[in-house]
Amino acid sequence: MSAVSDFRSRAEGPRASTGRVEVVGLGPGPERWLTPEASEALEQASDVIGYRAYTARIAPRAGQTVHGSDNGDELVRARHALELASTGRRVAVVSGGDPGVFAMASAVFEAIERGPLAWRALDVRVLPGVTAMLAAAARLGAPLGNDFCTINLSDNLKQWSVIESRLSLAAQADFVIALYNPASSARPEQVHRAFAILRGLRAASTVVVFAKAIGRPDEQVVLGTLGEADPGQADMRTLLLIGASRTRLIERTGQAPWVYTPRYVEPSPAPSAAARFDETP
Amino acid sequence: MSAVSDFRSRAEGPRASTGRVEVVGLGPGPERWLTPEASEALEQASDVIGYRAYTARIAPRAGQTVHGSDNGDELVRARHALELASTGRRVAVVSGGDPGVFAMASAVFEAIERGPLAWRALDVRVLPGVTAMLAAAARLGAPLGNDFCTINLSDNLKQWSVIESRLSLAAQADFVIALYNPASSARPEQVHRAFAILRGLRAASTVVVFAKAIGRPDEQVVLGTLGEADPGQADMRTLLLIGASRTRLIERTGQAPWVYTPRYVEPSPAPSAAARFDETP
Repeated sequence: MSAVSDFRSRAEGPRASTGRVEVVGLGPGPERWLTPEASEALEQASDVIGYRAYTARIAPRAGQTVHGSDNGDELVRARHALELASTGRRVAVVSGGDPGVFAMASAVFEAIERGPLAWRALDVRVLPGVTAMLAAAARLGAPLGNDFCTINLSDNLKQWSVIESRLSLAAQADFVIALYNPASSARPEQVHRAFAILRGLRAASTVVVFAKAIGRPDEQVVLGTLGEADPGQADMRTLLLIGASRTRLIERTGQAPWVYTPRYVEPSPAPSAAARFDETP
Repeated sequence: MSAVSDFRSRAEGPRASTGRVEVVGLGPGPERWLTPEASEALEQASDVIGYRAYTARIAPRAGQTVHGSDNGDELVRARHALELASTGRRVAVVSGGDPGVFAMASAVFEAIERGPLAWRALDVRVLPGVTAMLAAAARLGAPLGNDFCTINLSDNLKQWSVIESRLSLAAQADFVIALYNPASSARPEQVHRAFAILRGLRAASTVVVFAKAIGRPDEQVVLGTLGEADPGQADMRTLLLIGASRTRLIERTGQAPWVYTPRYVEPSPAPSAAARFDETP
């Protein structure tokens, strides 16, 4: 790759110190969840790189180049950003949510690890954001109020057996479980298999929530139970939450119930704790 | 409690619709991580309620009442907020980080569940924020780049046996583990016991990170290995990260290494993935 020797020589030149990669979390969508730090990075960037669905959210300023790409190989996008930064550009790599949670940050460091040593001298920063699970939790109440785990259900980059094992151990640990990427048109089956595993280990009354496109105009929240919910309603814009044994609803008149998980854990959680929720602790 | 009947009658009056509780995440500290939504809620609130360490961060506007309290019973604070909202006040309950992660949101819903039915008609909203683990991860690189879990190491509200079991299952699942509240002056021992459990289940070379006061002027990051790190350096301002088997460092000349966890999981992870790290960044 001739580009490599190219940027190497430039990295030693005077413009090198101005080159930078900022891996920016856009949050789940609305401006109200975009941090001031992220806004400033987008404002200052000479180049914005990302999946087109995310770059489309940004109103580019004059002189700024937006490189929207398909939802393809994140490593290609990461290398592109590092190459541009090596020539002195200030590059914002954008992700939805938080860039460190199943998004571009890990791809950027993977590219650096596999790339030329000069990339390790670049100014690379990750700017945190509100990840989907926090936005969904806030919308619902406080379902993550006790210990929880976060699993990417896609088996594009890991074996299904690893996911199965993690689901099983997480269910045994009585974690609230947040599932990212539960399904897509290319992977409709995994979420059904995940439900089959969880149904064998958790009570049928366990609260489950399908939180779709939280914060977007077409936001949708569906509450159900592990025993009865149809996993097929999950899609690639869904964050799926599986409650712990004590996760429960607070019923309201004329409004959707709140969902919350108490902070305390009693010696032996009542098996029916997730059931009807008319009891007060 | 006469306050109860008090707010009940007022809740039916004309001011009821203006009463509101917003549970606001302040993020880990700096303004650059405070969402516009949270800023606006703080600006609009008639009353701000929270642990003094958090309310001290807020410059109150004219006419706003700040109720700073000790780091005591969160339920008392939650009830106070709900009572004020019942009289028509617009109350911001503030938490560091994200309010849904081991913070005030769960306490507010617990208070509602145990409280008078009228509280269920109140306008209660949770505003998400950047939680400590996301800020720490961003500061380090991308350590949460694969599946992870989040455990509160305090046994104030749950039995130690529950924590032990969760640690053990999380280690077996090869999650990256984020530990909140790893230690305090009243609870110095738990983090030592946690390390003992993890040392029995994970390689000695596993990456561990003590991330203290991230984003604050006295921020400090200490990298080490599970086998050699001293758990005693954790305190109540520390977010402790225990890497997965594939979590590793990217060495840099003259700078602290980056820490990241690859997105992919190979059939059998290399046991030595977490290599060496005796230094402090």
